[in-house]
Amino acid sequence: MAVPRLFVEAPLVAGAAVPLEEGQARYLTAVMRLAPGAPVRVFNGMDGEWAATLAQAGKRGASLSIGAQTRTQTAPPDLTLLFAPVKRHGTDLIVEKATELGVRTLQPVLTRRTVSETVRLERLRAIAIEAAEQTERLDVPEIAAPLPLHRILDGWDGERPLVYADEAADDPSAAWGGAQGRARPVGEALRDVRAPALALLTGPEGGFDAEERRLLRSLPYVVPVSLGPRILRAGTAVIAALAVIQSSWGDW
Amino acid sequence: MAVPRLFVEAPLVAGAAVPLEEGQARYLTAVMRLAPGAPVRVFNGMDGEWAATLAQAGKRGASLSIGAQTRTQTAPPDLTLLFAPVKRHGTDLIVEKATELGVRTLQPVLTRRTVSETVRLERLRAIAIEAAEQTERLDVPEIAAPLPLHRILDGWDGERPLVYADEAADDPSAAWGGAQGRARPVGEALRDVRAPALALLTGPEGGFDAEERRLLRSLPYVVPVSLGPRILRAGTAVIAALAVIQSSWGDW
Repeated sequence: MAVPRLFVEAPLVAGAAVPLEEGQARYLTAVMRLAPGAPVRVFNGMDGEWAATLAQAGKRGASLSIGAQTRTQTAPPDLTLLFAPVKRHGTDLIVEKATELGVRTLQPVLTRRTVSETVRLERLRAIAIEAAEQTERLDVPEIAAPLPLHRILDGWDGERPLVYADEAADDPSAAWGGAQGRARPVGEALRDVRAPALALLTGPEGGFDAEERRLLRSLPYVVPVSLGPRILRAGTAVIAALAVIQSSWGDW
Repeated sequence: MAVPRLFVEAPLVAGAAVPLEEGQARYLTAVMRLAPGAPVRVFNGMDGEWAATLAQAGKRGASLSIGAQTRTQTAPPDLTLLFAPVKRHGTDLIVEKATELGVRTLQPVLTRRTVSETVRLERLRAIAIEAAEQTERLDVPEIAAPLPLHRILDGWDGERPLVYADEAADDPSAAWGGAQGRARPVGEALRDVRAPALALLTGPEGGFDAEERRLLRSLPYVVPVSLGPRILRAGTAVIAALAVIQSSWGDW
């Protein structure tokens, strides 16, 4: 059976005793049915991964006894995902999959067609932590508070290319002004990108509106890309674009 | 509002009257609230896409009146997905996403660690039809009945490379015999592949067992690939690998 892997906030050093949150304690004792002395793996986003044992488990909670470091801290590539929140289950899926695919920062973006403006950051952070535990990451992606698209673009660092995947871009009714031509296939467009930091922007169901498109197309750091001839749902587009980015630019 | 797009079994020719199934009739009249004369788009996997109108809608069902052809029939690249069924929601997701990502044939595979052996083909076909309608495909992927892995490999056409993504392959406890070396990153491995037909094989949660791995690694048409340094859930691995395949080998 796989050794459980947990994220904690506390500093990790050999011999330390780290108290567990109630949910984690319940998971180890009631779900995994571990007894004191059972092995656990633990990381905190700063100190790498450590072997630990369940030290004490009772009505007053549980704690871990930290053993030896098993991996030193590393960070995934500097990749940010800017995504328009979609209906609840869709946003949950985006956060989970982006964590598996090594995104370092998630930035929810409010666009004109964003349907779901409520972003429950605590809930999304819990999803990211669980996905990080399962995917063997040594860090948990940061999830920023939602911002309107124009605010994000106003403060953009032009050294970070913004890969922009617009699923509705090939819709002939999407009159964003075709002077700049069609988006290039994502794999081809990324071949030229050598920047040490990158961002991906994906739209809501229904895509960006004509004015947002025109603005994005006018910015020198924006790299418009196409994800093939079929229309992808918002969540699929995120996963598909991230996979191609990690494969050709990132750490795959 | 987008014009509804439906898959039907009937032949499509100008002027034909095509009766709708009960579910489709209910969708157009009760969910979309279309009145007779409203535009609909329709495809059957053989005759391209056609403009149509809702001809009659009442208690005895509804039918479409077929207008002019709007797209001629095309097929996606000859890409087969062999996947180990995972728990119900996971298999549903794989079928939906594989349809969006242009897979032509889906073959469920029974492996030693396959947990869910029940594959409800009718249900999966309904999911594939709905995804094909939404993703603007002109065909619906075929979903074959499940087969054991060894049966599939026994009858394999060696001209079709079998890209094999094993999420557990980097697990040091997975002693498949390391003589053949590690799998190459998927993007790099695909650069050499020029075959007109391709297949992707993905494993169950927990991966293939040591014997299955050894068998797969011994076959000349198998291309073992890695999907990066993080462990991906079975569904994520399918979407990620299909995206890179369509980007570097397929029709993106």
